[in-house]
Amino acid sequence: MNARESALLRARSQRQAALERLQDLLRIPSISTFSDHKPRMLEAAGWLQQRLEEIGLEAVEIMPTEGHPIVFGQWLHAGSEAPTVLYYGHYDVQPADPLELWTNEPFEPVIRGDDILARGASDMKGQVCAFLEAVEAMTQTSGLPVNLKVMLEGEEELGSPHLAAFMARHKDLLACDVCVNGDSAILAPDLPSIVYGLRGLAYFEIRVQAAAQDLHSGGFGGVVDNPALVLARLLADMRDESGRITLPGFYDDVRPLSVEERAELAAVPLDDAWWLKTTGAPALFGEAGYSTIERAVARPTLDVCGFASGFVGEGMKTVLPARAMAKVSMRLVADQTAERVEESLRAYLQERAPDTVTWELERLGSARPVIVERDSAPVAAAMRALQYVWGRKPVLTRLGYTVPVVSMVQEMLGVDSLMLGFGLTDDRQHAPDEKFHLPNFYRGIETYIHFVYELVADASDEA
Amino acid sequence: MNARESALLRARSQRQAALERLQDLLRIPSISTFSDHKPRMLEAAGWLQQRLEEIGLEAVEIMPTEGHPIVFGQWLHAGSEAPTVLYYGHYDVQPADPLELWTNEPFEPVIRGDDILARGASDMKGQVCAFLEAVEAMTQTSGLPVNLKVMLEGEEELGSPHLAAFMARHKDLLACDVCVNGDSAILAPDLPSIVYGLRGLAYFEIRVQAAAQDLHSGGFGGVVDNPALVLARLLADMRDESGRITLPGFYDDVRPLSVEERAELAAVPLDDAWWLKTTGAPALFGEAGYSTIERAVARPTLDVCGFASGFVGEGMKTVLPARAMAKVSMRLVADQTAERVEESLRAYLQERAPDTVTWELERLGSARPVIVERDSAPVAAAMRALQYVWGRKPVLTRLGYTVPVVSMVQEMLGVDSLMLGFGLTDDRQHAPDEKFHLPNFYRGIETYIHFVYELVADASDEA
Repeated sequence: MNARESALLRARSQRQAALERLQDLLRIPSISTFSDHKPRMLEAAGWLQQRLEEIGLEAVEIMPTEGHPIVFGQWLHAGSEAPTVLYYGHYDVQPADPLELWTNEPFEPVIRGDDILARGASDMKGQVCAFLEAVEAMTQTSGLPVNLKVMLEGEEELGSPHLAAFMARHKDLLACDVCVNGDSAILAPDLPSIVYGLRGLAYFEIRVQAAAQDLHSGGFGGVVDNPALVLARLLADMRDESGRITLPGFYDDVRPLSVEERAELAAVPLDDAWWLKTTGAPALFGEAGYSTIERAVARPTLDVCGFASGFVGEGMKTVLPARAMAKVSMRLVADQTAERVEESLRAYLQERAPDTVTWELERLGSARPVIVERDSAPVAAAMRALQYVWGRKPVLTRLGYTVPVVSMVQEMLGVDSLMLGFGLTDDRQHAPDEKFHLPNFYRGIETYIHFVYELVADASDEA
Repeated sequence: MNARESALLRARSQRQAALERLQDLLRIPSISTFSDHKPRMLEAAGWLQQRLEEIGLEAVEIMPTEGHPIVFGQWLHAGSEAPTVLYYGHYDVQPADPLELWTNEPFEPVIRGDDILARGASDMKGQVCAFLEAVEAMTQTSGLPVNLKVMLEGEEELGSPHLAAFMARHKDLLACDVCVNGDSAILAPDLPSIVYGLRGLAYFEIRVQAAAQDLHSGGFGGVVDNPALVLARLLADMRDESGRITLPGFYDDVRPLSVEERAELAAVPLDDAWWLKTTGAPALFGEAGYSTIERAVARPTLDVCGFASGFVGEGMKTVLPARAMAKVSMRLVADQTAERVEESLRAYLQERAPDTVTWELERLGSARPVIVERDSAPVAAAMRALQYVWGRKPVLTRLGYTVPVVSMVQEMLGVDSLMLGFGLTDDRQHAPDEKFHLPNFYRGIETYIHFVYELVADASDEA
């Protein structure tokens, strides 16, 4: 039995323990955006520190940033000929609200059919745990055939505000030949895929104020403007009836899809019936002239993520609100930048906002869109690994999601990232009842093992 | 010294005690819309029951309704020749949020200059207390020259949902010659006025849903519609650039302002600089073709009182919300009805809402607009009473506010209401730092005394 087979057998024998470890991590509510959750963030970091030591990594450390810390560990004894892999993951999760829409406690994982339900199950504690299980399966058998560095971040859900500075400070520590980023998904449970494109993000808050304070709508309705109506008008006019975004110059930097890419996306086996079923929406909607999958992964979008104004509690309050606020996220595609779309948005507001209100625009976060090299050795190794486990040729595709770290890694460390994760598009990431498909958890562990062995020379595979 | 003078002297000697009693009542957070505040509503009702007994009323009782109870008391010993006055007031108040914008605790009244600041000070515990002080001044001196019934409601801020049924059940108990409604205001501290017109109200909640649950905006942005953007479009298009409401048929039932009324309103000494200063808005806005005061009191309006969708907390959450909700209030003028404007709104939504969402429309409350008889004996008596106290001829005007009970009283008891109250337009009713002008509190007490004596024959005035 060769080293790879030993590791695979070991991983299979550990499935129950692996599941229990995943449940342990899911129980920690590591919500990075709530400042009062800092102790729970440290608890999650501590759990991971212990786990990295347990699986045989060295120099394991909880390293400070300006925000939540980064957990790091490494194992560098595969020899200078062997490649060095940097694994990236994050241990923070999105808030769980609206809590009332969960069918179970978001931080008390339950298993329902083939799924495990909990906040962070798919995004991305499930993937982090799968990778660490794969490492353990190798370190507990024949040892790792590659040099490995593991970097687990606590601020991905915030747009990784301190990661670039961290990488700049620790360039030598993080130096590597390739980055494996597990924050990814495959197209369907039985359809393996590799992501070569990711959308970027520009996230804004727009605040509008009319009167200096809330007023009685009886006494002042008709006298001063209504900031919720003004903001509603501004937001509504940001797109036209065909779903096209109207901000001036918004599409100027968009790289058109090639014929080949459109053909690949057309082959993705997710038809409109699947999207309707997955979302539960009465109809699909998006930019005219593009297929659903194209709109989902390869075209830029503008969405209102939140809108708040006035009284929204139980019953009636006849108030003319002083203020209205909206959170607006734009998904960007190559070669758009957050700076340029912010200029578009600001120009639009300057031109359109009436003088009956004052307004403010703040960018809360951003990330560049990413297109990675499709013909590299790591991509080829991952294609073969996926084919071993699924018995089927994987598809090259894009994802609509944003993984800011991918562009940062390219910029700070000079390497491409291989997106190799096992979420599913309908995992309800960022939403109530987030889930992770357990068969993919186990297949993911095996895929990571195969990938590492495929990455090194055939010789070392037959130890 | 005649009876009237004795009562006035007594009232003047009681000013400090009157102020302390007002403060006591203001300390009770009688917010009718919060179901968990029921005990505080009962506390306020109990306080008033005791106060009615203290000032000499009989048959004082806390009377149940389907919602919050009504406090009732009477004194019927002025003889069958004397008129019977029904006083209406309410003891419930609006919620105090947003709490962070108050400069003091909303239910711990403070005196700042000439004003007392607290939730409910102007709307309308200040007015209720002023009337009860006037009654006490008379009962503690020569006795009341009129028969009096006092009805204090606990659900005015909810649109008086159970008052009509209560009046229908107790028609004999409430039978009267005229109703005095203290829930009113004068135009400026030194400009007494009587309100002959009130706007009506139709208050709606509109709920829009796209996906079945919140989605990740990365995975689904561009695929399904955004309910916040859909609702923003629907709301924004409810009015045009000139501030005119676009709902089909919305203006069909509006009674045009007469030349005389427009001249009276033009004489109201509130210029645009005053409205700008009072509201703190950068500019005024409203329906083109009408003056600011016309828009404030005599034209219908449509306002968003609240808008909620998605994530509006600290930081970023890249969610594509499933739902959006808005509370919309319309101020109506004669001869509009809530039923007809609801038809307009429903027709608009049916025509305009896209099939990418489902929607619901619910009417949360309504009240008919009111125009009262300007040449009646009670109006004449009130005009003279105001002239005594202010030394100046009062102005006949309209108010933009809604007092649903006025139309109910007309319908159920067959009498007109005299709007005689002492709030000010800039009292920040329903808003943070609500205030009541204390000089008007004391002048209000004396005005009520004069009014009662003016209402009865001159003979009885010279006891």
